[in-house]
Amino acid sequence: MTIKSFHPPQRTLMGPGPSDVNPRVLEAMSRPTIGHLDPVFVGMMDEVKTLLKYAFQTKNELTMPVSAPGSAGMETCFANLVELGDKVIVCQNGVFGGRMKENVERCGGIAVMVEDAWGEAVNPQKLEEALQANSDAKIVAFVHAETSTGAQSDVKILVEMAHKHDCLTIVDAVTSLGGTPVRVDEWQIDAIYSGTQKCLSCTPGLSPVSFSERALDKVRNRSSKVQSWFLDLNLVMGYWGGEGKRAYHHTAPINALYGLHESLVILQEEGLDNAWARHAKHHQALRAGLEAMGLSFIVDEASRLPQLNAVSIPEGIDDATVRATLLRDYSLEIGAGLGVMAGKVWRIGLMGYACNARNVLTCLGALDDVLSRHNAAIERGVAVASAQTVLAAKA
Amino acid sequence: MTIKSFHPPQRTLMGPGPSDVNPRVLEAMSRPTIGHLDPVFVGMMDEVKTLLKYAFQTKNELTMPVSAPGSAGMETCFANLVELGDKVIVCQNGVFGGRMKENVERCGGIAVMVEDAWGEAVNPQKLEEALQANSDAKIVAFVHAETSTGAQSDVKILVEMAHKHDCLTIVDAVTSLGGTPVRVDEWQIDAIYSGTQKCLSCTPGLSPVSFSERALDKVRNRSSKVQSWFLDLNLVMGYWGGEGKRAYHHTAPINALYGLHESLVILQEEGLDNAWARHAKHHQALRAGLEAMGLSFIVDEASRLPQLNAVSIPEGIDDATVRATLLRDYSLEIGAGLGVMAGKVWRIGLMGYACNARNVLTCLGALDDVLSRHNAAIERGVAVASAQTVLAAKA
Repeated sequence: MTIKSFHPPQRTLMGPGPSDVNPRVLEAMSRPTIGHLDPVFVGMMDEVKTLLKYAFQTKNELTMPVSAPGSAGMETCFANLVELGDKVIVCQNGVFGGRMKENVERCGGIAVMVEDAWGEAVNPQKLEEALQANSDAKIVAFVHAETSTGAQSDVKILVEMAHKHDCLTIVDAVTSLGGTPVRVDEWQIDAIYSGTQKCLSCTPGLSPVSFSERALDKVRNRSSKVQSWFLDLNLVMGYWGGEGKRAYHHTAPINALYGLHESLVILQEEGLDNAWARHAKHHQALRAGLEAMGLSFIVDEASRLPQLNAVSIPEGIDDATVRATLLRDYSLEIGAGLGVMAGKVWRIGLMGYACNARNVLTCLGALDDVLSRHNAAIERGVAVASAQTVLAAKA
Repeated sequence: MTIKSFHPPQRTLMGPGPSDVNPRVLEAMSRPTIGHLDPVFVGMMDEVKTLLKYAFQTKNELTMPVSAPGSAGMETCFANLVELGDKVIVCQNGVFGGRMKENVERCGGIAVMVEDAWGEAVNPQKLEEALQANSDAKIVAFVHAETSTGAQSDVKILVEMAHKHDCLTIVDAVTSLGGTPVRVDEWQIDAIYSGTQKCLSCTPGLSPVSFSERALDKVRNRSSKVQSWFLDLNLVMGYWGGEGKRAYHHTAPINALYGLHESLVILQEEGLDNAWARHAKHHQALRAGLEAMGLSFIVDEASRLPQLNAVSIPEGIDDATVRATLLRDYSLEIGAGLGVMAGKVWRIGLMGYACNARNVLTCLGALDDVLSRHNAAIERGVAVASAQTVLAAKA
């Protein structure tokens, strides 16, 4: 059997990520590969670090992309900061808090879970109680922007609380970075990880992380080696760490880094404030259209992420059928529910390059067409008109 | 400060990898990103598995690329197969055997080292002695093609020995896959990992692995969880495992996989036998030229890899100066020595797409120009002529 070259269709990606990739990023990834120890490449690595510091709003020297997807960024934080027997308070309000628990336990730590309902923000009061009940806790971990629900938590308050009890903090910013404010220094986050395939408009495969000096002190003074050689920051720092000189550790994914560099240059050109405002604006337009169709958000307005819109699937509507129809008829991808929310919600992403008026209108027009086939009460065009009103008002 | 788009120079990559990437691969990586759960993408994943089975010469169902560089492929093998207290015999004859030792120990195993001189193949007799002295050993690990020296070991004999003593085997094929024969089923290898940036002519960032049923039995019946969530094959299998259906684990690096798919299609078009013959032929031409310049190989002919040519740096020649001059005047990258060989050898790669007559002549012409500036005994053009003779004779 002969397998031929693969030519993917052109989709509109409005799920939970990957989101639409900026064509400039795709073009950058196809530039000539050079050696990972080439002085020209080393210079580019320094630029990526500088650009990531801007994106994270930090001066942390150890700010760099892990050479693997977001899950490996999460693991970098836990594997480096958790030692055998360390107690870690994990605030869970969705799928990714559960993955944090797995990470803690696989690193030999003890996870103390603070549970909030899926779709709600992490409740600071519950964290405070857990901290008081666990005075030996070393770390507090939580998700800033839960990709499984679209809920946003208040990082500043949670970190303050953790520090008051002398705990380090690990924050998941996979879905927030570039879409809503992430202020590592101002909020005094100790360790944070993100992904490239969400609001950075890049392809998946890299995980930007940033570590404070306080966190690095813990990494440098561990009593045992980090259990992962690949993710050991004591080694990775020699590769990404100082300016200029590089010690060989692993081979960086050269062309993927070209893509990340370009996506960060684009972010810098637009400016973080403008990017955040763009996400907020198009969210309001999408929201108006979704609500005009009678769809309701599962997250309260106060903690709702603009870049990830989770809405309940109306009764009598089959999740898989609708998504398959959107893909077939409109080449449009929206996201399914994860975990306990499978079959119950759709997750509509408005992330990075995908967050624009064209996509808002495409999504609403496609969705009201497909839904109207199942529900005569939905009138075609109303959703789009509602969004247009918001877009015009805000223009 | 404003950072601009990055435009890398066009290099000729003849180091230990990354090697020159086929332009078809670069173009494939810039194709539109689609969702990692899109049915079209799932179909492509199945093709990648099929193509990797061909490259590895195996029917192993679990044959897939780990979503991270070769170091993570190595770690996938050790983290899944080594349990607390497991004794692992590691045959070391270069840098990467040492990295295996690190992996064993970080997984809680006990590494028993069998040392051979750098530049030599692994000595089967020494392994046999170690197996007899360690009847409780569970695993034997070794490097097929040592990237740090260019020495090739006899996988078939070493695996047979390990199996006779009821040990599983872990084989590093990072530099061999696609360049010299790797026959997973015929040689009965239990777990093997490779990289994409060597003889597969792809960009770095992915690590093809293959596990036998016997190895997977051990993974499925572990008494403890795999310490890495990201690399846990029990979870990864649900994502890459069966045909068709996919359970979400992490987000695959979509566009990097387009690149790997294309590089494997190219390998299939050429055919493994032809690819191996091409590496052997151009190695002979390069060798003739290097020897005409008075350079000598550090590895005996019998265990010399065609795709990685390690030669001693002549006395009085400064390693860094020569490599910097090659890069500046010819945009040509050759590799430095690693570890104890730093400053003493050059590693000249002839890997995948980079293994062609143009590169052989470029490298020899550039090297004899630069060396002749330091050594009047070297006559410009002789090396190239020697290579041309070999190329013509074999044509």
